[in-house]
Amino acid sequence: MGWSIIGTIAALCTTVGFIPQIIRGIRTKELNDVSPIMLSLLLLGCSMWLVYGLHLRDIIIVLANGFTLSFVSTIFSLRFLYKYRGK
Amino acid sequence: MGWSIIGTIAALCTTVGFIPQIIRGIRTKELNDVSPIMLSLLLLGCSMWLVYGLHLRDIIIVLANGFTLSFVSTIFSLRFLYKYRGK
Repeated sequence: MGWSIIGTIAALCTTVGFIPQIIRGIRTKELNDVSPIMLSLLLLGCSMWLVYGLHLRDIIIVLANGFTLSFVSTIFSLRFLYKYRGK
Repeated sequence: MGWSIIGTIAALCTTVGFIPQIIRGIRTKELNDVSPIMLSLLLLGCSMWLVYGLHLRDIIIVLANGFTLSFVSTIFSLRFLYKYRGK
């Protein structure tokens, strides 16, 4: 029980952690310093973690990577929106 | 065997993914758009994933989060170095 709490807090931090980046991006309308290669690799990686988590039947890995995937997609989209469509 | 390959590629992507951000930061000397709250939560989260991985005795989770921790620490340090010490 204690371990699942540690796993859950870990997953919450690395998932919810991307929300402040979304908020900062929306607030400043600047995401140019954020590496698009990093975002691409995170998208690919989270997709594969999701599949791996489904295989392990580990609900923490599945939920964490499902949400992270949606947050990183949002950052990726905002970055290009602000860069090419203006602010 | 196939599943461990998927897990390994997933872990590689979400770990190695932070290296392009380090390279971009060193190249442009600008990391101001990167959220410090995101970096703090990722540091905390990766530390706890590391502990959780040790408990699960999952070498993929342990190695991935060990390396990610060192990469995110580097980004965090560079961000404040460029911000307060100048470029």
